[in-house]
Amino acid sequence: MDIRAGRLEKEMTKNAAEFTSSLGFDHYIFDADVECNIAHTSMLKEEDIIDKDVADKIIKTLNELKEEGFEALTFDYAVEDIHMAVENYVTDKIGDIAGFMHTAKSRNDQVATDIRLALKIKVREIQKSILSFMEGLVETAREHKETIIVGYTHLQHAQPVTFAHHLMAYAQSLKRDYERLEDTYKRVNINPLGSAAMATTTFPINRETTTNLLGFDSYMENSMDGVSARDFIAETVFDLTMLTTNLSKICEELVLWSSYEFSLIEISDEFSSTSSIMPQKKNPDVAEVARSKCAIINGNLVTVLTILKAIPYTYNRDLQELTPHLWNACESSHDILNIVKDMTLSIKVFNGRGIELAESNFATATDLADLMVKEKSIPFRVAHEIVGKVVNEAFDNCIMLDNINSDFINRISVDIIGEELNLSNESIRKALDPVENVKLRNIPGGPSPEMVEIACKNTETFLEKEFEKCNN
Amino acid sequence: MDIRAGRLEKEMTKNAAEFTSSLGFDHYIFDADVECNIAHTSMLKEEDIIDKDVADKIIKTLNELKEEGFEALTFDYAVEDIHMAVENYVTDKIGDIAGFMHTAKSRNDQVATDIRLALKIKVREIQKSILSFMEGLVETAREHKETIIVGYTHLQHAQPVTFAHHLMAYAQSLKRDYERLEDTYKRVNINPLGSAAMATTTFPINRETTTNLLGFDSYMENSMDGVSARDFIAETVFDLTMLTTNLSKICEELVLWSSYEFSLIEISDEFSSTSSIMPQKKNPDVAEVARSKCAIINGNLVTVLTILKAIPYTYNRDLQELTPHLWNACESSHDILNIVKDMTLSIKVFNGRGIELAESNFATATDLADLMVKEKSIPFRVAHEIVGKVVNEAFDNCIMLDNINSDFINRISVDIIGEELNLSNESIRKALDPVENVKLRNIPGGPSPEMVEIACKNTETFLEKEFEKCNN
Amino acid sequence: MDIRAGRLEKEMTKNAAEFTSSLGFDHYIFDADVECNIAHTSMLKEEDIIDKDVADKIIKTLNELKEEGFEALTFDYAVEDIHMAVENYVTDKIGDIAGFMHTAKSRNDQVATDIRLALKIKVREIQKSILSFMEGLVETAREHKETIIVGYTHLQHAQPVTFAHHLMAYAQSLKRDYERLEDTYKRVNINPLGSAAMATTTFPINRETTTNLLGFDSYMENSMDGVSARDFIAETVFDLTMLTTNLSKICEELVLWSSYEFSLIEISDEFSSTSSIMPQKKNPDVAEVARSKCAIINGNLVTVLTILKAIPYTYNRDLQELTPHLWNACESSHDILNIVKDMTLSIKVFNGRGIELAESNFATATDLADLMVKEKSIPFRVAHEIVGKVVNEAFDNCIMLDNINSDFINRISVDIIGEELNLSNESIRKALDPVENVKLRNIPGGPSPEMVEIACKNTETFLEKEFEKCNN
Amino acid sequence: MDIRAGRLEKEMTKNAAEFTSSLGFDHYIFDADVECNIAHTSMLKEEDIIDKDVADKIIKTLNELKEEGFEALTFDYAVEDIHMAVENYVTDKIGDIAGFMHTAKSRNDQVATDIRLALKIKVREIQKSILSFMEGLVETAREHKETIIVGYTHLQHAQPVTFAHHLMAYAQSLKRDYERLEDTYKRVNINPLGSAAMATTTFPINRETTTNLLGFDSYMENSMDGVSARDFIAETVFDLTMLTTNLSKICEELVLWSSYEFSLIEISDEFSSTSSIMPQKKNPDVAEVARSKCAIINGNLVTVLTILKAIPYTYNRDLQELTPHLWNACESSHDILNIVKDMTLSIKVFNGRGIELAESNFATATDLADLMVKEKSIPFRVAHEIVGKVVNEAFDNCIMLDNINSDFINRISVDIIGEELNLSNESIRKALDPVENVKLRNIPGGPSPEMVEIACKNTETFLEKEFEKCNN
Repeated sequence: MDIRAGRLEKEMTKNAAEFTSSLGFDHYIFDADVECNIAHTSMLKEEDIIDKDVADKIIKTLNELKEEGFEALTFDYAVEDIHMAVENYVTDKIGDIAGFMHTAKSRNDQVATDIRLALKIKVREIQKSILSFMEGLVETAREHKETIIVGYTHLQHAQPVTFAHHLMAYAQSLKRDYERLEDTYKRVNINPLGSAAMATTTFPINRETTTNLLGFDSYMENSMDGVSARDFIAETVFDLTMLTTNLSKICEELVLWSSYEFSLIEISDEFSSTSSIMPQKKNPDVAEVARSKCAIINGNLVTVLTILKAIPYTYNRDLQELTPHLWNACESSHDILNIVKDMTLSIKVFNGRGIELAESNFATATDLADLMVKEKSIPFRVAHEIVGKVVNEAFDNCIMLDNINSDFINRISVDIIGEELNLSNESIRKALDPVENVKLRNIPGGPSPEMVEIACKNTETFLEKEFEKCNN
Repeated sequence: MDIRAGRLEKEMTKNAAEFTSSLGFDHYIFDADVECNIAHTSMLKEEDIIDKDVADKIIKTLNELKEEGFEALTFDYAVEDIHMAVENYVTDKIGDIAGFMHTAKSRNDQVATDIRLALKIKVREIQKSILSFMEGLVETAREHKETIIVGYTHLQHAQPVTFAHHLMAYAQSLKRDYERLEDTYKRVNINPLGSAAMATTTFPINRETTTNLLGFDSYMENSMDGVSARDFIAETVFDLTMLTTNLSKICEELVLWSSYEFSLIEISDEFSSTSSIMPQKKNPDVAEVARSKCAIINGNLVTVLTILKAIPYTYNRDLQELTPHLWNACESSHDILNIVKDMTLSIKVFNGRGIELAESNFATATDLADLMVKEKSIPFRVAHEIVGKVVNEAFDNCIMLDNINSDFINRISVDIIGEELNLSNESIRKALDPVENVKLRNIPGGPSPEMVEIACKNTETFLEKEFEKCNN
Repeated sequence: MDIRAGRLEKEMTKNAAEFTSSLGFDHYIFDADVECNIAHTSMLKEEDIIDKDVADKIIKTLNELKEEGFEALTFDYAVEDIHMAVENYVTDKIGDIAGFMHTAKSRNDQVATDIRLALKIKVREIQKSILSFMEGLVETAREHKETIIVGYTHLQHAQPVTFAHHLMAYAQSLKRDYERLEDTYKRVNINPLGSAAMATTTFPINRETTTNLLGFDSYMENSMDGVSARDFIAETVFDLTMLTTNLSKICEELVLWSSYEFSLIEISDEFSSTSSIMPQKKNPDVAEVARSKCAIINGNLVTVLTILKAIPYTYNRDLQELTPHLWNACESSHDILNIVKDMTLSIKVFNGRGIELAESNFATATDLADLMVKEKSIPFRVAHEIVGKVVNEAFDNCIMLDNINSDFINRISVDIIGEELNLSNESIRKALDPVENVKLRNIPGGPSPEMVEIACKNTETFLEKEFEKCNN
Repeated sequence: MDIRAGRLEKEMTKNAAEFTSSLGFDHYIFDADVECNIAHTSMLKEEDIIDKDVADKIIKTLNELKEEGFEALTFDYAVEDIHMAVENYVTDKIGDIAGFMHTAKSRNDQVATDIRLALKIKVREIQKSILSFMEGLVETAREHKETIIVGYTHLQHAQPVTFAHHLMAYAQSLKRDYERLEDTYKRVNINPLGSAAMATTTFPINRETTTNLLGFDSYMENSMDGVSARDFIAETVFDLTMLTTNLSKICEELVLWSSYEFSLIEISDEFSSTSSIMPQKKNPDVAEVARSKCAIINGNLVTVLTILKAIPYTYNRDLQELTPHLWNACESSHDILNIVKDMTLSIKVFNGRGIELAESNFATATDLADLMVKEKSIPFRVAHEIVGKVVNEAFDNCIMLDNINSDFINRISVDIIGEELNLSNESIRKALDPVENVKLRNIPGGPSPEMVEIACKNTETFLEKEFEKCNN
């Protein structure tokens, strides 16, 4: 059936039909569209809006279609979209009475409903992958609670931490990515069906019924808003942009750490490649590609927001163009997430390298300053200045960490505050030793093995609860 | 005190100092920074980490500074940022012991804490303005529950609705903008203090204490994450982008509706201007400027996300550059919100024009089709085709809405389905009359005056509850 | 042949191979890759770097592959990309000596060369479509040199112009889009081949030769730049973003003008659709979809720029991810361009409507003010104020344009400047008549039929010259 | 004088006036606005459109204003913008006859003209800074033609190059940034004056005259395009985004190279800072801030493109909001450019470190493969496989570069191709030695000192010519 028949005389040109077609992306909403039609027809039947027998025939046929799947549909350019294709399928089977399923419903509310139904599933899938990444991080962290690495600020050595502590920072960031999707899910989970073209209908439909049948939390409270609201799309795409932006930071670190200069880790061969000209190379290609693919979602977000800018109410065909970018954002980010997870969880850490770096470049200097504050009650700022000078002299004279002793410090403290500090060599050594140092940072949220174990436990509790929610 | 003294020999060039300075934006976090120092010093005192008398002196001086305000600080280029300026203020008053306030704390955790504290207030302010806009919309809607206008899809006449119903669509969209900020607020309301430079500290600090003193919900669970997490900034800016994108749609409609061709509304003189060359013009400048300024936030969002892309842990100075865009996004969007609110709530609606349009262009044609389905039990698709033809012929022969009668329809139905429909002229008239039509669309979420009144009441209930929350 | 063999022990996982694969987009550079190999091998032969017979065999096989086309290649996941696939094809035919074609060349310089070769063709194609749109605009303009429409500022009536003049504004904007691509073409048209992996080679290659064989203007002057420069991609994508942003303005106008309220044009049925629920609708779907698809290119641009942000020299695998977005931007914008062209050139203009609008809302008021300046030598600003008052009073008292006469104006001028202006009714009529008015605006760049004819002629001269260039 | 007086009854609210005001940015176009008024008035006089004496008085007063500068203007909220302020200034001095300067001119064409005039100067300034950076790079490169560093692909060691060669890659990239601005300049350098409000004027103005007086190349050929075209803004902002994206790559490298792990360079103290808590730190803050500030321009670009999306012709007040982002992009990018230039040109290179890295990780392996191809005529791919195996075994057994000899290679070649290669130890040594290696890469665009000297000379020739152009 051609809905143009009544009003328009000429067919669209083939180019125009292709150009405006949503068919390339309609398979994403096939299941949802069939479900939506079944629920709507059931309600029409229950409310005596259409004949019960007709309704039963329609529902039966839709269930058959569900079974047969997307491939059972026939498409040509006269068929504008999946809604028409589904209707045509039913019409082919049961004749013109199929048209009753479209009573009190429009493509405007239907497509909005379909997208939300399909998106709910996608969001849950991505959430589960996030949880699974977190789970892997906890497991790997447990193996590295005593693996010292240098923590960086400004890409300069800051203070010693552990590899476990660093991984658990990733886990925290992923947790927020998960929670954002959880919040967005609430706003996806609302039913626009019943808005019809934009002004509901004069048929006595029951919106509660379809809302329950389709598993939505509630229905949209304004029909004009119902057919035109697409902020849930922008919001989801933003969440995914944030997720992949966070993942891009992990990729950046893997690239950096597997450079010859850092040599902190080796990425598994399975996620590396070599060069066609330089046989010695082992390249972190997967990390690089993942890092760059993150930018795809940034682009999707800008496209979505630019489309939404300053278009008047209610439905405009512009809105159709949002969904390809939504599905692309979902798939791209999910792929990135999974590969970054697999790659991160399979890296090999060079244990000795972290401690070597931690010992070679005064990463424990803060603790020497803290020691002065604690033992000698000088203000931190003064201690900071003394230690700055200590480090400078050590650099200039190639003095290594373990050669810094009480005398050396005294010489400098005399210069600056006019008196000797007389710290014991023993306490100096302890402050400057990275392993000792990390253990002393035994504050909630800190890198000490004890605290990291607490973080692991807390995360496990979180994961347990959320896995259960997502699997329902 | 110059913290460079120990480690670096040369001063920054004036250009470099200016270039890296955050001072232009630090006034946004002044209050927060003082609060943060007070809370931290109180905790240091309570935990016996620093001397009680010293702590009291520091706290007293900080309270004086709070009183005196931002202007009491002294800035020059040796002063890198507000943290240094605050410390210098205290040092000037009580000498070098001021340095004790910096024990077990770094600028890294402090600035993260400051931004969160200041942002909590900004977010609440914007949320209140949203609620206030919604309140005005409800009030204006109540005056226009029977003011017929045409609802548009594809900027073509779709179906008659009321101005009230349209305004309540705005309210729904603003409600979601509000809720998104509410969800984001949860993720802003977490305390990074105690993370220190990135690895907590060896001093026995109590993070619960500062969390409570500063009014945060909880503290960040990983210190490396604590100093580097800035997703709360991106998330807030996204929320504001979404808010202003929604506002841009309102602006677009006001511009359109106040065109000579639409003539649906007149924007108050207070939000209009004229032309320097064309004296007849009355231009909707405020709506245009607001529409365009919305794009500022899109730009802020892209800047923030681009900065965050692929930077390694933990603190990098890049992060400093995020906050100007955060504050700019807050201020710009708040300004836009307030002006769009004032402008929208002061427009004059030309009552007669809406109904004139609704009657002139077959906006009620769907209901004629629905009538056929209801009374004659023909499938909707068939009714749709008949009505399409009716409209086409009416157009071609300049037949007005009220001249479409049973005979006219019969002639066409014979052509298409081979039989007369014999609808009564009375029921045809009723289906085609816009006023009647709107009343019949009495479905939850629909445009009937009754349903719009329910929507108003529901919104009022929401507003009452949320105003209370935001004012606490 | 598997280039991993020497260096890596394990295969990539299937997911990782798919994730990093460029094969989905490599068909865009197939022709270019074969050409590039032929040119390089020819040069190796000419410079006696490889054996002449071996070279001839390789070239012959590559020519066969060119004939057979992309489908002749075999792909599996061990094949990383098209370069490998091409090499494998040759190896299958002539054995291991195929490996000589890779002497003194790397995938790094080859892929950069391929993209540039393929892009040169794409850019020319798009340029030709722009010229063709301009040609159509000139033709249509010629038919409408006397078709009065209102020109808008702020979407308010400003001054009468002609439809022809408006179309020629589109032509000017397209001309700049064309010129930008022309400028970009210069920067695409430079040969990176010979940069090898990044540091050229120790083989005595001749870069002039390959540059000439491949039809490039010159070669890249620094090998590290040669393999890593991708600004030509960002620049092309920007040009296309600008082009489609300009096209989005045309779409916006077509949507607006075909609204019932404006009723200035009718979009051909071939570019319209109707509603599944509202049979009276004729929707400008193609214009809407085109308007929204423009935002795709904005997204591509952001993706490209975000990928390029802050990656170190030289080749990083991130760069691979740029090309899909380049090709997508080329194809999407080309499609949009062609459809907007066809749609715009087939619209039906309602002749009477433009003049009706021009007469009804004081669009000629400026000329009344100009008349006062010319005939009575009062400053424009004063005239502006008088006319503003005239318009206001006319509005308030529903006085139409042709009832404004000398007495009416005198009454107001006395109020404002204390004296009568005594303009003749004849000159007032002439100033206020839209048709007359347009003819009087006979200034270069103005809307008078004479000036528009000059604009058409100038554009034709431009088109002739450029068509010739693009077809070579 | 208040241009609202005639048409609007109520003043704008203070908030609305502030919100729509352009005054915060109008100082950027002050000089241009005065110039534009002078040129226009001179033309009006020359063409006898206004009285010569009046014209002279106006011009004299404008010249006085030019002398006194922006501060001489008076602003309050009744004054909408700088055009009004300038006119008010003249009116204050010579009375109402000042109004004649606005004959045949509108703010619409004037502001477009002003922005272009001001932008021409900004673009030239930025171009000169680019040239100056290139000049510095050539100078520094000359000092480092023999300073070996490793060239990276995938952040893995690729092949040895020189620091000079790397710097000259920067220079090439800057050259294209310069050329893009040069191309854009052509499209900025066109005069919209005479377009008036949008439809030219009935006064017999001479557009050639103002075009010449203002130093434009030509005038805009369509008046509707003249007042609405803003693609020159988007294009300029794109050029600056590309420039800063290129600069962000330099910053990334400086951060990386000054890490402890790379230790290739030391950034001057003048562009570094230390930590408030970690006294050992020397942080590359300027490089980090510059890297992040680059993202500002990305944001400006998105804002500009989003504003321009789908707004109808001709002038809309939205366009006003473009200019702040244009000027911000100009200033931000110019600041970034200058600081990155100063920082880059003052870094200290650790000479020994580059060669140390080049020798330690088989960066010359390609040349060993090339050697096999040259001396033994085996296909490159086979050589590649042998060398891959050599490197692998060397890694696994901790064999250093200078211990790889003919026997070692023979053992592996037997494994793979079943025969010994018998390369001489002498030629192996030469191929593997980084210094020798670089010298051998003596191909145009290559890293050999000879080729880099040619690159320096070519760049100098370019600079000489372009400096001259920019200074005129």
